[in-house]
Amino acid sequence: MKQKLTIIKVGGKVVEDENSCKTILESFSEIDGLKILIHGGGAIAKDVASSLGVKTEYVDGRRITSKEDLDVVTMVYAGLLNKKIVASLQSLGINAVGISGADGNTIEAVKRPVTNIDYGFAGDVIKVNNGFLYNLLTSDTTPVICSITHDKKGQLLNTNADTVASEVAISLSSLFDIKLIFCFDKNGVLKDSDNNESVIPTITKESYNKLKSDGVVSDGMLPKLDNAFRCLNLGVSEVELSHAVNINNNIGTLITSKVNV
Amino acid sequence: MKQKLTIIKVGGKVVEDENSCKTILESFSEIDGLKILIHGGGAIAKDVASSLGVKTEYVDGRRITSKEDLDVVTMVYAGLLNKKIVASLQSLGINAVGISGADGNTIEAVKRPVTNIDYGFAGDVIKVNNGFLYNLLTSDTTPVICSITHDKKGQLLNTNADTVASEVAISLSSLFDIKLIFCFDKNGVLKDSDNNESVIPTITKESYNKLKSDGVVSDGMLPKLDNAFRCLNLGVSEVELSHAVNINNNIGTLITSKVNV
Repeated sequence: MKQKLTIIKVGGKVVEDENSCKTILESFSEIDGLKILIHGGGAIAKDVASSLGVKTEYVDGRRITSKEDLDVVTMVYAGLLNKKIVASLQSLGINAVGISGADGNTIEAVKRPVTNIDYGFAGDVIKVNNGFLYNLLTSDTTPVICSITHDKKGQLLNTNADTVASEVAISLSSLFDIKLIFCFDKNGVLKDSDNNESVIPTITKESYNKLKSDGVVSDGMLPKLDNAFRCLNLGVSEVELSHAVNINNNIGTLITSKVNV
Repeated sequence: MKQKLTIIKVGGKVVEDENSCKTILESFSEIDGLKILIHGGGAIAKDVASSLGVKTEYVDGRRITSKEDLDVVTMVYAGLLNKKIVASLQSLGINAVGISGADGNTIEAVKRPVTNIDYGFAGDVIKVNNGFLYNLLTSDTTPVICSITHDKKGQLLNTNADTVASEVAISLSSLFDIKLIFCFDKNGVLKDSDNNESVIPTITKESYNKLKSDGVVSDGMLPKLDNAFRCLNLGVSEVELSHAVNINNNIGTLITSKVNV
């Protein structure tokens, strides 16, 4: 039987705020067994960019990473946020090691090809080399991964943190029994989007189809759930969508391929 | 017999400039056997601080690290420079892993006590835990260490990169046969400070005393040489002072405790 590994993905908003970051890191430190924290960045990167006179451009809601903007996200994600998280976890007794996808050649990506939109230095993951992560996990250290990757030709790339979490989880599922938790700003997938208490505790492939056809789940939740099922199909044991404060108390939506849960 | 380990310390100036950085990393990648790169930062941190409206304060030529300034150096040293170096080394076939002193709890420091000057978040190294570095070195990865440390209580600290290099070298000397190379802007210790070709090839304890009494070596070189002999006394096999472009061709000053070289 494979050893259990919990992978938590938190958004930039959660880690940027001192209080919410403290709470999430305390909860994270209490998770039993092997674990990995994956984070992006958020408003701080925008603030730093703006102060440095770097324009943050969006096309159709998607960020364009200019050369200058890449420097900013590298500074903020891989430097400021990653090292603050590591130092905090160290104070909580967790021997954290903060890395980007370039470190240990962990995540190889390719600069997104220019079609009708040029996303700049946005990276699409092509390969997770899990050897270095395996070494970290099996030598009593806890990886903290920021969403900066590289192309193995010397170029850093800005990558979606949800994608980094999914690809790392899928890759490590050959070695570990993985629970992947995506933290977001709701308690889980909600029956009633205005009621944060109306969490759907479990979604299976079958119930997902019904939720979709009934129109209960729509809009922003669809890509998250599609991605969750993709992870399950590719080897991840369980995916959970949960609020960051609830990662240890089973409030949230469990997406599972098991029929009886 | 212990395995050979080469530790190179480069200044911020060298790694900030794209061309000189490329040159030094190519030379570094060609070093045979185990190696570690240690870097600080330089003008970029000042530029970023200035653009963000963070004042860089100096008292008696020593930098005062305010809370805001610590954020800047963490962004620039641990983020921008460290990850650019790692990505470049990866492109050169070196499986680099970039870390700060917080990662793997590698370098514990203490916030410099306030006497008549408050240096802010400047850290004095109290302990190098070389276990994580040993794991990296013995699993075909190459550590790239920036000069940010932590106090194990959640606080990052800004630490002198020469000190980081010395303390890491001393700590690892129990496990490896260490050559520590400090790169700076001259070819080595010079007989005539105006002639960059007048390098003194070797300095021993005995010749150092004579160089001092003759007034050949003075001013800025004294702390560098005192530190080099301290490293030798504490277990490091050889220390070299050299220009960054010369790390592979034996131009430079070798400081050694061996009488016959």
